[in-house]
Amino acid sequence: MGFKEKAMPKRLAILGSTGSIGTQALEVAAVHPDKFRVVALAAHHNDSLLAEQLERFRPSLAVLADGAAADRLRSRYDGPTRIMTGEEGLNAAATLAEADTVLTSLVGFAGLRPTLAAIEAGKDIALANKETLVAAGELVTTAAKKHGVAILPVDSEHSAILQCLQGEGAENVGRIILTASGGPFRTRPRESLAAVTVAECLRHPNWAMGRKITVDSATLANKGLEVIEARWLFGVDYDRITVVVHPQSIIHSMVEFADGSVKAQLGRPDMRLPIQYALSYPGRWPADFGRLDFTSLADLTFEPPDTDRFPALAMGYEAGRRGGTAPCVFNAANEAAVLAFLAEQISFLSIAALIRRALDAHEVVAAPSLDDLCAADEWARSFVAATIIDGI
Amino acid sequence: MGFKEKAMPKRLAILGSTGSIGTQALEVAAVHPDKFRVVALAAHHNDSLLAEQLERFRPSLAVLADGAAADRLRSRYDGPTRIMTGEEGLNAAATLAEADTVLTSLVGFAGLRPTLAAIEAGKDIALANKETLVAAGELVTTAAKKHGVAILPVDSEHSAILQCLQGEGAENVGRIILTASGGPFRTRPRESLAAVTVAECLRHPNWAMGRKITVDSATLANKGLEVIEARWLFGVDYDRITVVVHPQSIIHSMVEFADGSVKAQLGRPDMRLPIQYALSYPGRWPADFGRLDFTSLADLTFEPPDTDRFPALAMGYEAGRRGGTAPCVFNAANEAAVLAFLAEQISFLSIAALIRRALDAHEVVAAPSLDDLCAADEWARSFVAATIIDGI
Repeated sequence: MGFKEKAMPKRLAILGSTGSIGTQALEVAAVHPDKFRVVALAAHHNDSLLAEQLERFRPSLAVLADGAAADRLRSRYDGPTRIMTGEEGLNAAATLAEADTVLTSLVGFAGLRPTLAAIEAGKDIALANKETLVAAGELVTTAAKKHGVAILPVDSEHSAILQCLQGEGAENVGRIILTASGGPFRTRPRESLAAVTVAECLRHPNWAMGRKITVDSATLANKGLEVIEARWLFGVDYDRITVVVHPQSIIHSMVEFADGSVKAQLGRPDMRLPIQYALSYPGRWPADFGRLDFTSLADLTFEPPDTDRFPALAMGYEAGRRGGTAPCVFNAANEAAVLAFLAEQISFLSIAALIRRALDAHEVVAAPSLDDLCAADEWARSFVAATIIDGI
Repeated sequence: MGFKEKAMPKRLAILGSTGSIGTQALEVAAVHPDKFRVVALAAHHNDSLLAEQLERFRPSLAVLADGAAADRLRSRYDGPTRIMTGEEGLNAAATLAEADTVLTSLVGFAGLRPTLAAIEAGKDIALANKETLVAAGELVTTAAKKHGVAILPVDSEHSAILQCLQGEGAENVGRIILTASGGPFRTRPRESLAAVTVAECLRHPNWAMGRKITVDSATLANKGLEVIEARWLFGVDYDRITVVVHPQSIIHSMVEFADGSVKAQLGRPDMRLPIQYALSYPGRWPADFGRLDFTSLADLTFEPPDTDRFPALAMGYEAGRRGGTAPCVFNAANEAAVLAFLAEQISFLSIAALIRRALDAHEVVAAPSLDDLCAADEWARSFVAATIIDGI
């Protein structure tokens, strides 16, 4: 992973500071004022929350990608922080000379360009934007290697794997075992899934997260994305990545080693822990995000994922194995379909059906450039939109 | 832990080669002929099994502690291996110049002198004889430090902890969580424990082990011994060692770190895995001791230990905290009581009662010498014998 510990305090830029991960990252930063200086905050349009964050953390740079929101911020804020907007602003936050670590928690494919820019500027990446690695795994990991920067996962599953791998030789990794909660519809019969509402879908049993990832958890597309993310983060073939449904979300993931021994990481479902670990890695910092109480813990159970009811997981593997632009299309078709579902344009089951159609219609480009990936991403979104208009 | 990897193949002496751990260690050695040379085998009296082991592994030295058994071996064996007997023989096996690693799997306090001799001769120790570390934790760990040798646990629980600690800073260890199966009487009401037979006691739900440790598992004295062992192996205070009953014995133990993250090691209940890990540490070797199948795994459950029904566990903590010769007396009283139980001289509940009486009657010697420990050990055995004769 080519990781060299940087001097303390870490100088942190957060892309996506007003979202679920961004706000929790700022909670972590607030717990450890000695360990962080927040130097840049970037968000999409939430000017009121960003204004509060500026008061509290006083970064050098604040960015609102949405121009009107940036204007609102400028009109209400008169502190010393420089305010920028648009892609230019995001790029400035990602590459700010002062920063040594960039937490990328933008949602979806939109995170790719800023993440690549941060890597090229030599910043270590705390990666919450898994779509970046799904869509452009080869491009991003090659750039990280070239620029000698670490990509540290914020996803609880991948953080668990990183923790289990600590001190272990890469040659001894047998299998990565990603756990999945199974989502809110784990026990629902297939017939009833057609009528699932957005509100039902957003009621995740264990985690409070953003809307897009909550829908992805319900379809298991999220686990498909995570399989591809794991392949790139840990350099392990798809045949050696297994998904196990573990509804209690206490074991966040596991690694099986060559001798048959399995290591697991457990914790309460609180994203502040993996966020902090990505920032403290390879060390740890004392924190009180709650402790597991084994004497009052529910039974831990395991079951195989049902890819008949949740085909998006199998499609994730399929896209990963096809390689090239296929994972990018898997991701883009999913993003477009989830947006349509959240807008109540399509049914729950149509999300997977649209990904299927897009993967079948796509002609894979091998070893894609950034332009190829952007083209594939756009193609998939247009394809999904057109398919919705034509009727699925 | 001051561990330096030795050149391959490892030259291994096994003290206790005909017992449960010893025979499984030889299975591990047989799987990895490139990684081991077995240079010494020592046992108590099983000459026929030792003769087979000599044919197969051709060590330089074979020892039967029992003189008559050694004579029988000499009369049936005419190969090149030198045969010795008695304490002199055990000492020779423990300190053999050819050996670099000594697996000590003798049962009980009898393992202390040979283990100390091996440490003083600069051998790394794969420790299956936990009583050594319980009775003489300070003496043994001080000697190991002085001679720059590693003490690597073979106990599945302590192996799990060692695995979870890999790559982690000692300053970040919050708490060690030892799992306990709860033994065969976990769900039995206290009234019925008085009438427990030896045969019932030897039917352990998960592990096939030697007789003494199987009884210790039923009383939870084994977990008391393991708490003390953990204190010395990992340098963690008793307040930061917790015992959790986990009847399925799939999670072998856990470590909670300063950030609240918990790492666990899981595996099938097969001692070959921790035996091999003690020998492969800090690396791992590919092996096929079976794999966990998460899709067919029983529910994993956890509950607090019941120290009313199983007071030996609480007495282990108490003895550990008192320090000095107290843990030695805890161990010796337990050994003597278990022997009496196996000989059907006392009831199951009398085991804990005898430990209690011995701990209450004992005057603790602080910072004990080896002679102090031997005296405390003998005192406790005599005390238990006299108490049994007097009527408990």
